[in-house]
Amino acid sequence: MNGKYEAGLGKRRANYTPLSPVSLIRRTARVHPDHAAVHYGGVSRSWSETYARCASLAAALRSRGAGSESTVAALLPNTPAAVEMAFGVPMSGAVLNMINTRLDAAGVAFILDHGEAEFFVVDSGLAEIAAEALSLAAVQPVIVYVHDPAAPGEELEGALEYETLLAEADPMRDADMAPGDEWDAIALNYTSGTTGNPKGVVYHHRGAYLNALANAVEWTLPHHPRYLWTLPMFHCNGWCFPWTVAAMAGTNICLRAPTAENILAAIGASAVTHLCGAPIVLNMATTEAENRGIALDSPVEVMTAGAAPPAAVLKRAEAVGFRITHVYGLTEVYGPAAICAWKPDWDELPATERAALKARQGVNYTVLEELSVRDPETLEPVEPDGERMGEVMFRGNVVMKGYLKNGPATEEAFAGGHFRSGDLAVMHPDGYIQLKDRSKDIIITGGENVSSIEVEGVIYLHPAVSEAAVVAAPDERWGETPAAFVELKEGCTATASELIAFCRERLAHFKCPRLVVFRDLPKTSTGKIQKFVVRQWAAEIDGEERRLASG
Amino acid sequence: MNGKYEAGLGKRRANYTPLSPVSLIRRTARVHPDHAAVHYGGVSRSWSETYARCASLAAALRSRGAGSESTVAALLPNTPAAVEMAFGVPMSGAVLNMINTRLDAAGVAFILDHGEAEFFVVDSGLAEIAAEALSLAAVQPVIVYVHDPAAPGEELEGALEYETLLAEADPMRDADMAPGDEWDAIALNYTSGTTGNPKGVVYHHRGAYLNALANAVEWTLPHHPRYLWTLPMFHCNGWCFPWTVAAMAGTNICLRAPTAENILAAIGASAVTHLCGAPIVLNMATTEAENRGIALDSPVEVMTAGAAPPAAVLKRAEAVGFRITHVYGLTEVYGPAAICAWKPDWDELPATERAALKARQGVNYTVLEELSVRDPETLEPVEPDGERMGEVMFRGNVVMKGYLKNGPATEEAFAGGHFRSGDLAVMHPDGYIQLKDRSKDIIITGGENVSSIEVEGVIYLHPAVSEAAVVAAPDERWGETPAAFVELKEGCTATASELIAFCRERLAHFKCPRLVVFRDLPKTSTGKIQKFVVRQWAAEIDGEERRLASG
Repeated sequence: MNGKYEAGLGKRRANYTPLSPVSLIRRTARVHPDHAAVHYGGVSRSWSETYARCASLAAALRSRGAGSESTVAALLPNTPAAVEMAFGVPMSGAVLNMINTRLDAAGVAFILDHGEAEFFVVDSGLAEIAAEALSLAAVQPVIVYVHDPAAPGEELEGALEYETLLAEADPMRDADMAPGDEWDAIALNYTSGTTGNPKGVVYHHRGAYLNALANAVEWTLPHHPRYLWTLPMFHCNGWCFPWTVAAMAGTNICLRAPTAENILAAIGASAVTHLCGAPIVLNMATTEAENRGIALDSPVEVMTAGAAPPAAVLKRAEAVGFRITHVYGLTEVYGPAAICAWKPDWDELPATERAALKARQGVNYTVLEELSVRDPETLEPVEPDGERMGEVMFRGNVVMKGYLKNGPATEEAFAGGHFRSGDLAVMHPDGYIQLKDRSKDIIITGGENVSSIEVEGVIYLHPAVSEAAVVAAPDERWGETPAAFVELKEGCTATASELIAFCRERLAHFKCPRLVVFRDLPKTSTGKIQKFVVRQWAAEIDGEERRLASG
Repeated sequence: MNGKYEAGLGKRRANYTPLSPVSLIRRTARVHPDHAAVHYGGVSRSWSETYARCASLAAALRSRGAGSESTVAALLPNTPAAVEMAFGVPMSGAVLNMINTRLDAAGVAFILDHGEAEFFVVDSGLAEIAAEALSLAAVQPVIVYVHDPAAPGEELEGALEYETLLAEADPMRDADMAPGDEWDAIALNYTSGTTGNPKGVVYHHRGAYLNALANAVEWTLPHHPRYLWTLPMFHCNGWCFPWTVAAMAGTNICLRAPTAENILAAIGASAVTHLCGAPIVLNMATTEAENRGIALDSPVEVMTAGAAPPAAVLKRAEAVGFRITHVYGLTEVYGPAAICAWKPDWDELPATERAALKARQGVNYTVLEELSVRDPETLEPVEPDGERMGEVMFRGNVVMKGYLKNGPATEEAFAGGHFRSGDLAVMHPDGYIQLKDRSKDIIITGGENVSSIEVEGVIYLHPAVSEAAVVAAPDERWGETPAAFVELKEGCTATASELIAFCRERLAHFKCPRLVVFRDLPKTSTGKIQKFVVRQWAAEIDGEERRLASG
């Protein structure tokens, strides 16, 4: 520190601020105070109003003891309260834990307990499942009830009204807002891993800030985008888009239920310019538009991830007026961290070639240091020949801090100096990656990750089941659906519909198999089920067999 | 560090990389290897070629001993070598010191010595002044000679050819590239302060990275912009645009001499989409287009700073096809750090109102934490009434580390927790700032800062001069020009042209007064010259008086 380029040239208040998304809303509230921040049904609030509400939320949380080790859990659809959580909680210094609203009560309870929730913010329409989760959970968080007239629900015992909480304290002053360190945790997002218990992915302020800006850079967002919330904000904090929309002084068009009808209506009524979602959302909206003979007044940019939309869907969607950008990521990398960066030359190619190029997951986001495909043993990059498979690995500032209270999983994920995604891919000669097989044990249905191992665990509970393998079967509506291949115990019987009902009693519905096939399972010499064979079966299931399997 | 959100969740290779512009070119070289990075005359090089050349430069510098305390000085016009400096030097870990090519030899020598230059990269067209500077300087840097056929010059004694240097070593491997810490110095830029000796502003990798991305976000840059280099790269590292253009995989259209003719020719020949420059550049290009009856084929975005273009110029420029964005900054804040963020509503206003709004310096860049106007004594923000004056202050991650080897100036600039610009402004009720008086002692002529105190110092050397005050006079061509008001010693005589010639022998030409007026100077009771009165005189100088003063 004695060299001429260091001496007297250290960090100080004037030249160093911890990177945080809190800065983004603060600036927009000052520069564009009257610009609409949120639209939701009849509610419309400006950026200055939204900022004041977030600052009030922060002050109330702080006065009730929230600090950097506090978890604020939230079970909310894409309402204005969810947008406010994305800022108010980080301002207070606490950690935001948006919980998947499609989980069952046991799943929610596990998360409340594992995250040690001190606050639990619940939408009225989700009060029932929240109450059940609270009855199962050991923690006793402060319960905050967000009353939405669009979805009235039962009152929650001992709950505080959200608006009452906001009125409890004067808005927090700018200078009091967290973080003290940009490495401080900002969010906790549970992911279904390949084991039954979800893992809690911890984000920091630095990564959230950088990915928020990166979304704007990669997508070349204009100022004042009108952003429709079809992607749930509980997925990787809405891929960091609450923060991106604030940075660009856009408007959050909130949507409680992203049905095809609602999406099309919102696009028309709110002059939507951008939206994100799983391919199923694109597919649904496209089909609805076609059925109603609607073409969009002006193009809507769609960022989609999960699986690549097939050529036919791309073509149809573009005909309606959607312009598709394909991104890729995981909860562990703040949502999208890779993008199929489009090259102007490709515009000239025939539609099928364009679709094949767009189906690739592509290259690292600008703020991600490195996206690579490597041999999982040696960590050597695979040959970029489009054929050799390896594991997708991420390295850089938009990779999580690690898994909460799970040292072994964190160390395993980071072993070798990269985040190991578990996804298998090839590297093409032009440096673009393409997924070839997702982590073997994950099924993506309607944009949600389902752990096949978790589902198998439930099926094994059925007294008639001897062995079971759950894999992804293609599904026109959901992209994929869990399919169970089951060997029954000698002398036992069960039907497909019986097993499906059995699962629905014990699992969130989206996790339950929609297909159950009874068949002897292929095994290795050591008795291990050969899942690749089962996957092949699932890929081919059709016609009468499919009908039978649906129960 | 024992809380659940810290334990086992520290920084590691997988999730932390020091922010640096080096990452930006590395990614673009991989993702868009064949896209043109630079065009210059007959030379065109792709991003992969440019990256390889930068990595070779870095390796050669490193093998010759460059490290984090090494200064690489460069006297270069906007050629491809200047673009390569912006990456090759930081990759090596050394600090890039781009020197103003309009300085005189003594000015260059001062900088070489003060920065302790270990390398000095010189364009052939600037060899003469470099040789003179070297003869005056105490340091004995390694001299690197960039031969440009467009401007052949004398050989420099003992100089190494740039291409020979590049060939000396294999390109540096990615893993060996600096920085180790994002706070490491990346660049050194000398600014004329209010005292005679320039101050060396030190930038860090973190700020350079953030402002590079911010330029893209603020200007909503598309991918692959075609960026014309009219702004000298020695001004705040070209406002960080070498790094921005790399981030967006654009093309640097280099231009040795940004004359009106060359600018218009380049726009036509190279399909330029974006350029930056002082208002004089805009004015020149507009006038040239008008004279030749040219309208641009497609609009060119122009980012301009320094002084607001008057309404008439704005209108004429827009008629030709230029779209103007007004930014504001100083060397100490990486170039532009404020922007007159445009509001869609304003498009509807009459032209003069629009020009008045656009003339304001505006609001903080997204990556700048705070832009404020404060009482310089109490540091209290002034009333946002558009009338009360205060000092413009900056705070955040795009504020310099400080001044090199100048503790007192650094402490003074940062006193109170903000960078104090010395510029005077008002804050409008809508939160936009407007400069009312620049730092009293700086004159901006043709986009260059001139210290009035430095010029006065030279005038005082003249034996006939008793007292002198140098202030800005309005100038149609240069925006402002230095005007000297001089009181002669009793019984002495001198003419305007004599004094101008006297200055030209001792100062870079752009710093010399173009007007000299002989007159008794107004003084306070304690004998201090009342500069505000002199400024008023200069504002009003006209007609016959102006002709006389021109010598």
